[in-house]
Amino acid sequence: MKSFDLIVIGSGPSGHKGAIQAAKFGKRVALIEKEKVFGGACIHTGTLPSKSLRESIYNIYMLRLSDESWTRKKIRKEMTLEDLTARKNRVVNNENEIISHQIRTNGISVYHGAAQFIDRNSVKVVTQEGGEITLKSEHFLIATGSKPVRPSNIPFDDIHVCDSDSILGLKSIPESMTVIGGGVIGCEYASMFAALGVDLHLVDKKSDILPFMDQEVTEVLKKALIDQGCRLYLGDECTKISKNAKGLITTELKSGKIIETTHLLYAMGRAPQSPALKVKELGIKTDERGYIDVKKNYQTAVDNIYAVGDVIGFPSLASSGFEQGRLAVCHAFDIPHGDFPDEFPYGIYTIPEISSVGLTEEEIAQKKIPYEVGRAEYAETARGQIILDSNGLLKIIFCPETLKIYGIHIIGPSASELVHLGQMVMSLGGNMKTLIRNIFNYPTLAEAYKIAAFNGLNKVFKKGGIHF
Amino acid sequence: MKSFDLIVIGSGPSGHKGAIQAAKFGKRVALIEKEKVFGGACIHTGTLPSKSLRESIYNIYMLRLSDESWTRKKIRKEMTLEDLTARKNRVVNNENEIISHQIRTNGISVYHGAAQFIDRNSVKVVTQEGGEITLKSEHFLIATGSKPVRPSNIPFDDIHVCDSDSILGLKSIPESMTVIGGGVIGCEYASMFAALGVDLHLVDKKSDILPFMDQEVTEVLKKALIDQGCRLYLGDECTKISKNAKGLITTELKSGKIIETTHLLYAMGRAPQSPALKVKELGIKTDERGYIDVKKNYQTAVDNIYAVGDVIGFPSLASSGFEQGRLAVCHAFDIPHGDFPDEFPYGIYTIPEISSVGLTEEEIAQKKIPYEVGRAEYAETARGQIILDSNGLLKIIFCPETLKIYGIHIIGPSASELVHLGQMVMSLGGNMKTLIRNIFNYPTLAEAYKIAAFNGLNKVFKKGGIHF
Repeated sequence: MKSFDLIVIGSGPSGHKGAIQAAKFGKRVALIEKEKVFGGACIHTGTLPSKSLRESIYNIYMLRLSDESWTRKKIRKEMTLEDLTARKNRVVNNENEIISHQIRTNGISVYHGAAQFIDRNSVKVVTQEGGEITLKSEHFLIATGSKPVRPSNIPFDDIHVCDSDSILGLKSIPESMTVIGGGVIGCEYASMFAALGVDLHLVDKKSDILPFMDQEVTEVLKKALIDQGCRLYLGDECTKISKNAKGLITTELKSGKIIETTHLLYAMGRAPQSPALKVKELGIKTDERGYIDVKKNYQTAVDNIYAVGDVIGFPSLASSGFEQGRLAVCHAFDIPHGDFPDEFPYGIYTIPEISSVGLTEEEIAQKKIPYEVGRAEYAETARGQIILDSNGLLKIIFCPETLKIYGIHIIGPSASELVHLGQMVMSLGGNMKTLIRNIFNYPTLAEAYKIAAFNGLNKVFKKGGIHF
Repeated sequence: MKSFDLIVIGSGPSGHKGAIQAAKFGKRVALIEKEKVFGGACIHTGTLPSKSLRESIYNIYMLRLSDESWTRKKIRKEMTLEDLTARKNRVVNNENEIISHQIRTNGISVYHGAAQFIDRNSVKVVTQEGGEITLKSEHFLIATGSKPVRPSNIPFDDIHVCDSDSILGLKSIPESMTVIGGGVIGCEYASMFAALGVDLHLVDKKSDILPFMDQEVTEVLKKALIDQGCRLYLGDECTKISKNAKGLITTELKSGKIIETTHLLYAMGRAPQSPALKVKELGIKTDERGYIDVKKNYQTAVDNIYAVGDVIGFPSLASSGFEQGRLAVCHAFDIPHGDFPDEFPYGIYTIPEISSVGLTEEEIAQKKIPYEVGRAEYAETARGQIILDSNGLLKIIFCPETLKIYGIHIIGPSASELVHLGQMVMSLGGNMKTLIRNIFNYPTLAEAYKIAAFNGLNKVFKKGGIHF
């Protein structure tokens, strides 16, 4: 029986990173992947393809906003689905090759098949063809990720009624679309298709979209969605989804409203892919939805078995997954390493894009500690003018006494890049003065930090606070 | 005679910022501007319009790179000059209105005309209509900027033979263009027009373009220019520029080469607009080219007269000008303020964009102190793949012992934004570990920092240095 120092189950961001890290330490590593391709949902059905599709749509959207008249007239009638998906296919293939190459060159043994634990040191791999092999290992890293929830009462056909996996296989550009779910995935696709000019209807039973984000920022997103022609049905629940005689998808809401569209995306959450592993039988705990419980350093209740990435739940981000994979492996092999950072950013690739780090205004208000807010609209920067931005916003929440930054919330182009500037200031103990004393390239969106810092400090100054 | 606390001469970035700052302190401020519009070269003939034109070209360029076939076919034959310049005109008008509004609401007195010093406390303003008025002030801020050099042997007609001001008034999309000068302005326009598909020829007598930048980065730019079809004539001087019988512009080079193009841009530097002020007569010193000498805090040899912005020479950046204006005014009125920061970024809006902060590899090598370099190509990031980038590069030069960062050099999309992330780390005393311990959104170009940090630290590690 083959024996390893580490067996990684799943080759998404956290598993892939963990496997590479262990191999770099000279460990004998095996990687079990149930699909024929590496990279998991991140590369094949989630983050990367959706962001690539978004980029193609975004380029077109920016041209539509601009004054280049030849594009506005031409885009809708000349564009094909291939125009929209060529980039996505190219990017996914590239990344797949990069990951395969890394796995090969790092000498990682690969087994394609479904994994199932036998005991705390051995696992059975069942191939798609029905073959079986048992592998032994000192350590395990579970990184099996998550998959879309597919309730049986939704008439999925994966052509007109899709989940967030099958939506990427669209056969034509939809005329109209209903999106069920105002979380990250629902909002990303809703804004993307709305920006493309699809007649878009977004439904969520909660009273607001993205409820965990700063509300001022989600207000801007809602306004942007509405400006793009998207209709929002919030605090309303869908009671029935069916196909009607005309082949349209009918969504009936509790309020009595009825939506008829050519397509529907059901994006009401994802579920962890843990049950098939049979981890409970080893004494590993999960919550009621199947998310695996881990201690700090990502150890499960069985201490040689670690779990990372979407299968452990929050924050379920590729960016965090990488670091979780790395930290778990360092811990398993007693290699000195830092801790998962206190502050990590969130990037939501809606159009407009959202990113944040640290506390929201709602969270800080709940703590009942004094705070002040500095704001800058993108349009206050020359770069914002140049990109014809009309709703970008950067807000900084800070302590009026120490001027330390509690949180940064950005909506607008490049938000996911810009947030890291403030993240560095927070991470290194800088404060609002750091932002006004540094020089920013002109014209850049980064100047919004300086404008927001002046705005915030002026408020403190007027209240009799510090000079700057 | 009207009397003020501060008279500002010139309403470009440094003058405008200085005037507003003084007004915010409650000072009586006058602003003398020789043009009918505010904002100086930055808003009207330089930075802002050229970056707006660049944005229009860049959007088209990115579409041409992409797989959206409908655009590649259509762009060249359907695009008009109006498509290219509409954005620029809109942005310039907007910014002009914003500045006018700020000047008005801050109660600044405005005099349109040319300024000339009478003595250290009074100045004569001559209007375009020939009117004259004398104004008195406790302090002066000279911010008259610079203008393109126009040697008499160049047959400027400002239609086919242009300087960097008149190029913005192009009447048609050029078929071909010779650019004389491989400095910032020459490179920006050369890359912009080459990206648009103009047959482009770039001439500089120096052996390299942008000689003050990190050479590895300028090599990438040269390669990108050549890939776009641009021909480079470096280390070669133009001996004669003339119009031939066919109406083409002929450029003869020392090497014997002859270039014939429909258009020529002469971009061999700018000259300070100081002579008309008659500052020498007050005892204010300038260098041989007319750049005004200033002490720290921007005081001239006459201590109530300050000078800021392009009229004092290096670094001649709008971004620095803002801060110089602010610091000079704070100093004049004894208001506590910081110093001009040790590190400030450079942004060069070529296609691809370049930005840097801190020392170049050439500078550090000259100092003969130990250093190491971490590199990441944009293509190593998922975001780089998504934007189909093929030549982006981020390099970090750092101390192999302390891991402190000496310099950051970036070429590729969003370089001018991305550089600030590293600038914050430098400014707050962080180091290479800061970059690997932070989590970056996926997919972003900012991830290149983490990849470059791993790359650099691995080199140090292999040489027996620190663990991380």
